[in-house]
Amino acid sequence: MSVVEPRVITVPYEEGAYWRKGAKEGPEAILREAAKIRPFSLASGRRNPYVLADVMGNSPRIEPYAKLRSLDAIEAHVRHILEQGHAPVILGGDHSISLPVIRAMAARYGARQFGVIHFDAHSDTFDEVDGFAYHHGAVFRNIVEEGLVAPEAIFQFGLRGFVRDDGLTFADQHGIRYVLMDDFRRQGCQLAQYCPPDMPYFVSIDIDAVDPAFAPGTGTPVPGGFTSAEMLGLVRQLSAFQLIGLDLVEVAPVYDVANITVLLAAHLLCESLTHLHFVQLATEQVVA
Amino acid sequence: MSVVEPRVITVPYEEGAYWRKGAKEGPEAILREAAKIRPFSLASGRRNPYVLADVMGNSPRIEPYAKLRSLDAIEAHVRHILEQGHAPVILGGDHSISLPVIRAMAARYGARQFGVIHFDAHSDTFDEVDGFAYHHGAVFRNIVEEGLVAPEAIFQFGLRGFVRDDGLTFADQHGIRYVLMDDFRRQGCQLAQYCPPDMPYFVSIDIDAVDPAFAPGTGTPVPGGFTSAEMLGLVRQLSAFQLIGLDLVEVAPVYDVANITVLLAAHLLCESLTHLHFVQLATEQVVA
Amino acid sequence: MSVVEPRVITVPYEEGAYWRKGAKEGPEAILREAAKIRPFSLASGRRNPYVLADVMGNSPRIEPYAKLRSLDAIEAHVRHILEQGHAPVILGGDHSISLPVIRAMAARYGARQFGVIHFDAHSDTFDEVDGFAYHHGAVFRNIVEEGLVAPEAIFQFGLRGFVRDDGLTFADQHGIRYVLMDDFRRQGCQLAQYCPPDMPYFVSIDIDAVDPAFAPGTGTPVPGGFTSAEMLGLVRQLSAFQLIGLDLVEVAPVYDVANITVLLAAHLLCESLTHLHFVQLATEQVVA
Amino acid sequence: MSVVEPRVITVPYEEGAYWRKGAKEGPEAILREAAKIRPFSLASGRRNPYVLADVMGNSPRIEPYAKLRSLDAIEAHVRHILEQGHAPVILGGDHSISLPVIRAMAARYGARQFGVIHFDAHSDTFDEVDGFAYHHGAVFRNIVEEGLVAPEAIFQFGLRGFVRDDGLTFADQHGIRYVLMDDFRRQGCQLAQYCPPDMPYFVSIDIDAVDPAFAPGTGTPVPGGFTSAEMLGLVRQLSAFQLIGLDLVEVAPVYDVANITVLLAAHLLCESLTHLHFVQLATEQVVA
Amino acid sequence: MSVVEPRVITVPYEEGAYWRKGAKEGPEAILREAAKIRPFSLASGRRNPYVLADVMGNSPRIEPYAKLRSLDAIEAHVRHILEQGHAPVILGGDHSISLPVIRAMAARYGARQFGVIHFDAHSDTFDEVDGFAYHHGAVFRNIVEEGLVAPEAIFQFGLRGFVRDDGLTFADQHGIRYVLMDDFRRQGCQLAQYCPPDMPYFVSIDIDAVDPAFAPGTGTPVPGGFTSAEMLGLVRQLSAFQLIGLDLVEVAPVYDVANITVLLAAHLLCESLTHLHFVQLATEQVVA
Amino acid sequence: MSVVEPRVITVPYEEGAYWRKGAKEGPEAILREAAKIRPFSLASGRRNPYVLADVMGNSPRIEPYAKLRSLDAIEAHVRHILEQGHAPVILGGDHSISLPVIRAMAARYGARQFGVIHFDAHSDTFDEVDGFAYHHGAVFRNIVEEGLVAPEAIFQFGLRGFVRDDGLTFADQHGIRYVLMDDFRRQGCQLAQYCPPDMPYFVSIDIDAVDPAFAPGTGTPVPGGFTSAEMLGLVRQLSAFQLIGLDLVEVAPVYDVANITVLLAAHLLCESLTHLHFVQLATEQVVA
Repeated sequence: MSVVEPRVITVPYEEGAYWRKGAKEGPEAILREAAKIRPFSLASGRRNPYVLADVMGNSPRIEPYAKLRSLDAIEAHVRHILEQGHAPVILGGDHSISLPVIRAMAARYGARQFGVIHFDAHSDTFDEVDGFAYHHGAVFRNIVEEGLVAPEAIFQFGLRGFVRDDGLTFADQHGIRYVLMDDFRRQGCQLAQYCPPDMPYFVSIDIDAVDPAFAPGTGTPVPGGFTSAEMLGLVRQLSAFQLIGLDLVEVAPVYDVANITVLLAAHLLCESLTHLHFVQLATEQVVA
Repeated sequence: MSVVEPRVITVPYEEGAYWRKGAKEGPEAILREAAKIRPFSLASGRRNPYVLADVMGNSPRIEPYAKLRSLDAIEAHVRHILEQGHAPVILGGDHSISLPVIRAMAARYGARQFGVIHFDAHSDTFDEVDGFAYHHGAVFRNIVEEGLVAPEAIFQFGLRGFVRDDGLTFADQHGIRYVLMDDFRRQGCQLAQYCPPDMPYFVSIDIDAVDPAFAPGTGTPVPGGFTSAEMLGLVRQLSAFQLIGLDLVEVAPVYDVANITVLLAAHLLCESLTHLHFVQLATEQVVA
Repeated sequence: MSVVEPRVITVPYEEGAYWRKGAKEGPEAILREAAKIRPFSLASGRRNPYVLADVMGNSPRIEPYAKLRSLDAIEAHVRHILEQGHAPVILGGDHSISLPVIRAMAARYGARQFGVIHFDAHSDTFDEVDGFAYHHGAVFRNIVEEGLVAPEAIFQFGLRGFVRDDGLTFADQHGIRYVLMDDFRRQGCQLAQYCPPDMPYFVSIDIDAVDPAFAPGTGTPVPGGFTSAEMLGLVRQLSAFQLIGLDLVEVAPVYDVANITVLLAAHLLCESLTHLHFVQLATEQVVA
Repeated sequence: MSVVEPRVITVPYEEGAYWRKGAKEGPEAILREAAKIRPFSLASGRRNPYVLADVMGNSPRIEPYAKLRSLDAIEAHVRHILEQGHAPVILGGDHSISLPVIRAMAARYGARQFGVIHFDAHSDTFDEVDGFAYHHGAVFRNIVEEGLVAPEAIFQFGLRGFVRDDGLTFADQHGIRYVLMDDFRRQGCQLAQYCPPDMPYFVSIDIDAVDPAFAPGTGTPVPGGFTSAEMLGLVRQLSAFQLIGLDLVEVAPVYDVANITVLLAAHLLCESLTHLHFVQLATEQVVA
Repeated sequence: MSVVEPRVITVPYEEGAYWRKGAKEGPEAILREAAKIRPFSLASGRRNPYVLADVMGNSPRIEPYAKLRSLDAIEAHVRHILEQGHAPVILGGDHSISLPVIRAMAARYGARQFGVIHFDAHSDTFDEVDGFAYHHGAVFRNIVEEGLVAPEAIFQFGLRGFVRDDGLTFADQHGIRYVLMDDFRRQGCQLAQYCPPDMPYFVSIDIDAVDPAFAPGTGTPVPGGFTSAEMLGLVRQLSAFQLIGLDLVEVAPVYDVANITVLLAAHLLCESLTHLHFVQLATEQVVA
Repeated sequence: MSVVEPRVITVPYEEGAYWRKGAKEGPEAILREAAKIRPFSLASGRRNPYVLADVMGNSPRIEPYAKLRSLDAIEAHVRHILEQGHAPVILGGDHSISLPVIRAMAARYGARQFGVIHFDAHSDTFDEVDGFAYHHGAVFRNIVEEGLVAPEAIFQFGLRGFVRDDGLTFADQHGIRYVLMDDFRRQGCQLAQYCPPDMPYFVSIDIDAVDPAFAPGTGTPVPGGFTSAEMLGLVRQLSAFQLIGLDLVEVAPVYDVANITVLLAAHLLCESLTHLHFVQLATEQVVA
């Protein structure tokens, strides 16, 4: 494992969402706000080592009417970034983009070679809809079914509210490690209590992990979520781990008020760049 | 006491409000959002035993220009539901509708035979306005003065902010059991600490118990209130009690932003249906 | 030290802000909402001793195109209030107005004769911009550099997020006592732990100390701030101190949603009038 | 007939509205905006002869829970203004306030001694609702049935959209002179074509005469209405008539966007004060 | 040709849109508002012959992730309505739904047996995107290419703004009869000047034909469009024609302000039901 | 006179505004929307000869706290563009930026060598405020007083509403050619009737010339203005003139609704680039 520079890429893809769309507009809005954020982090007395403009990568070609082709383009794009020795930091887009991202990870580093720390109101382990498997509510089912990550290396935080009948069946059967919102908050929101420190992780942040009062700008908000302070604190806790990449998804500006969701997302991005350790895994096992 | 099915009824009445109206639009908006909520509750690993459409009752006839006739219609309607062996779950409307609801309860089960657990920013024990006693700030005064519920069986949580000079005089003189917001939060928001477990209760939730950041869509918001997580937790705590009915009032969509108040109210409704135990009291003492 | 009446003055000045303006509209909006707030405080069982209309003072003449003249007019105005034996309670306007206010305080009571308790997301100790020193991000640098208040008597709470590179350099070099947001919350948000009780204080509340979910209506919001309950509690903690004045700044209604920021500010004003002890210092040392 | 000064009075009464309330907040909002409007009218090269503050009258006491008493108070108030030799310019409130206003007019000047020029999307000649006759959709029926104004002296402009089955029956049977929106626009929106010049008039402007794009802030908007330019032009056309008073009703700020309805209403008020000729009729026939 | 009853069907399909989605929410919102519209039309002194609830049909099954299957379901559904002897009045949904609707028409009545009157800011004759031909900007190209309607029987009104380079090439080459917005307004917006009276027509109303000030709630607004009065007038002009069906598409409530777009759409629906003549064509030529 | 390419420059300066600020955010918002506008203009059947990105120039350095220095920077920047043989197309910013722009024009081409066509709700000929002459309501007074343009070569369209007492005094005394809104509309909004064709012009478009229903996003809206269709038509009429530059000012996104003002401004920009003829004057008379 060696420390690497992140590359921020934007993935304005929202075709994995059913319900309310708008996540396509997320990346542009987040970057616009992030560009105004200053370099020095008060929480740590540390300077953001990166100027955002310097770590911006290109973006994959998204074709709204060609879902599978778009997903393939995302995967290829992330593989290219990994091959260049960078860690991908991806601004979505709906959550279904995490599948091609993690496919690329597994292709590069080998399947089941890393865990996922996942913040979300939903477990995203639902079955296909209209015969389509690659929607934003199925992404962790897909990841497990494709064997990309071991279920017991997937750690989900923030789950709450009501789900379809098959909501946790899949997670329970496969042994995904989810922690319900209230339980997590009751123990003090400590990641270290759940996630083994010696494993490299990919981090996936669905903004709807955060409560609608703090993050109304998303497609499927659920009351009872993290406060902005809790979410920012969780990102800073991630500095204790070795990370191979991160995505931040489901910011839909059209539902935002006073731009607070976008502002929070921009801070989550900058906190990530400032505090987190992105690494590269040994790649002898690369499949491609 | 025997377990009964709830009946959800809508009471689009806002004529008890002075200040800012709009609660008339609450029920339709809440139901629209609740219809999209899935059946399986993550917080408890339990399925909502009711399909909302199956437990919807009729609604009383509301005549905006005929307040007293409307209140009578609400009372008659709730009595009918009770007589049919159901527990009323009422979506208001302004808070003044709780008076005819509790009149019906007392007529059915006898006066002073049950307590009330009341979540609100206000004690609603104020004097008449313009010579009119049945406004939304007087409902708990009316309930006490009509002898429907013993004052010491009324438990109020969430009170805060500033009130009229006669604010707590009535409550203090009659011995209503109120707990100020800060005190309640300091002790961990535990209902069991205040409400005896052996008493049947009616529950009255004024959405303004919740902080304006989480529930801006109401007529008389007061800063410093419950978070959405706290309010949802309180509803789940209610599962420890025997409940004879519940109302959820003062949701005014016109003041909402990003629909978050309505979304929270819809979740409170579904949590209630999933977690709470609705019962019927022995009715030998029925007055009617 | 003798107890004195407050005088509420409005300072609709926003020329010290760069970034997003709108704080000029704050005072009128806050007063409009405060006029509807009732007299009896539930949190303390105490009546607001003042009727807002009775303690309203005049306002200084603000000339938007003449910054320095406006700042001088603010200072003269506050001096006049102090000379009349009142304590100034100032509704801004942007934060740069605290400089002339504290100049007036120091002129009346002597430099370094009082401390400042300062709630803010930012330390406001930044260098000049465009060659202009009197902007809203420099006000505490100016106060220190002009020798008005001893740096070690300045207590800052709520700091968080990202700042310019020179962010805390000035504060560190001069010994300003700042407490980072997360540290402050971790210890329970207790002022008594930091601020010596035997010192008279001026209080400066920048509404952006509060989280954007609770106070979106401000020019430079930063996620992770105080909840409304925390901020109201902090104002009530201030009742343990002898205060010579207070300002409440940076409320920008144009960015507000559902008027919740204005409503919170109005409650902060009324809590202050109800709970706080305003005093006059001995003035033998007056410079003027 | 002699020229008299207007007196602007505010009537924050909305209890005559069923459907969507909010007109109670109209007067304060309109006055706030009108206070910022400059004195010199470009359209006529004439100065507003009145400073708004100088022609503000007191307001009647409104009791939201006492409709009839409120209507009586409005009537008494307007009679007092007339007796003092002023012409009332009333800011509502919902349209039902025009009934007590015109009762006062008829009491002072005699029934059927003046006409009414009425701008509205609706004819307001509907039957009682819930047994209540004095609602905002019945005001012109009431005026006719009480014999206050001759039906053939009532001129209605802007009518459009869909109404209840009894919509125009009353108007047709009694001979009210209404002009449908499209017909009126087709002939160029010329009042002189319909209203005899030798009759004194009261003017009643329901802001929903204006199209929702220009005046969304009202309770019962109907597409297809006047543009703001047309409405302002109509007010200026009124300068050709002798007017005994005017009301401007149904501005509901809560439904407004970007304050444009309020801004238009404030301009309509200032145009009225600048351009119109308010007169007093000979009062030998006064009934009181 | 014989007069038939309309059947209102809702098609919440938005997968044909690229750019900004949200048209899926249109039908529910329009129906909610239309349910409040009264029966008697002032513009014509005629009663709406239909109670909306009585002419509501079922809806086709929409599968968001299965575009082609959804389009087929729409077609089948409309064919069924036609076979039952009704005229379809369709609430979309994005504009791509007009293709299966017109396929059904052509299947029932024969290709090139009717014309289309089309109101829109765009000609919708653009080429495929991402290899997908059935998007909302291509629907009239598809209709022509599939030979469903003769190009010279397609009459487009409201075209304006900027389009892709291939914007009018297709329309010009095939002889579609489009009238640019300014030209149409200059001649008085008279349909009779362009559309032969002896041809049966299908009517397609894209709400973006209307100006963004009157109809902001749509995905691709273009300034300079019809006023609400003009659009309502055009619908009433349609009463001079024999119509076989109508669709009203692209209402996206999430972009609406003060609900004015939805309100206008609801009026357009009610005006259509009241004023228009829906007919059935002789079906000897039916293909199916 | 020879045809030249335009250069689009952004001037995010709002320090000339008193009242409501926010025009600083205009340029970025307009460009973001303009980037999505397609190349082919339906109104003229002509392609935009310029790709926006290709004609973007640099921007002057704006220093919010240094007004005069900022104005000088704007002037220098425009002079540089003129010297390079381009015509400046400036996106403001508040209207006070037109002074340095026209100073640059006069420096390059000679004073009184060109006229100005000015669209605005206000004449902008007011006296200084707070001793500051260079505010956005004084720009045309400054232009005349500095002798840059002959008053009789200034043509103002759209004036309406109410102004300060000195509103038209200056314009009348100096002979500025203003046309009141209603008069202009009555004659059909024909520029050719007022502006001699043989004179080169600078064009200045204040977005508040447009009615608040179509352009709410501005600091000082006045009802009764141009529709979006009228304003777009006026820009196209300008193709009959030889233009040396254009500015578009006072777009303040924070007051916008549904982005319609920004969308209109972006179309005005694209229509200008497509339809207008920008020229360079002979420069032998250059003063500098």
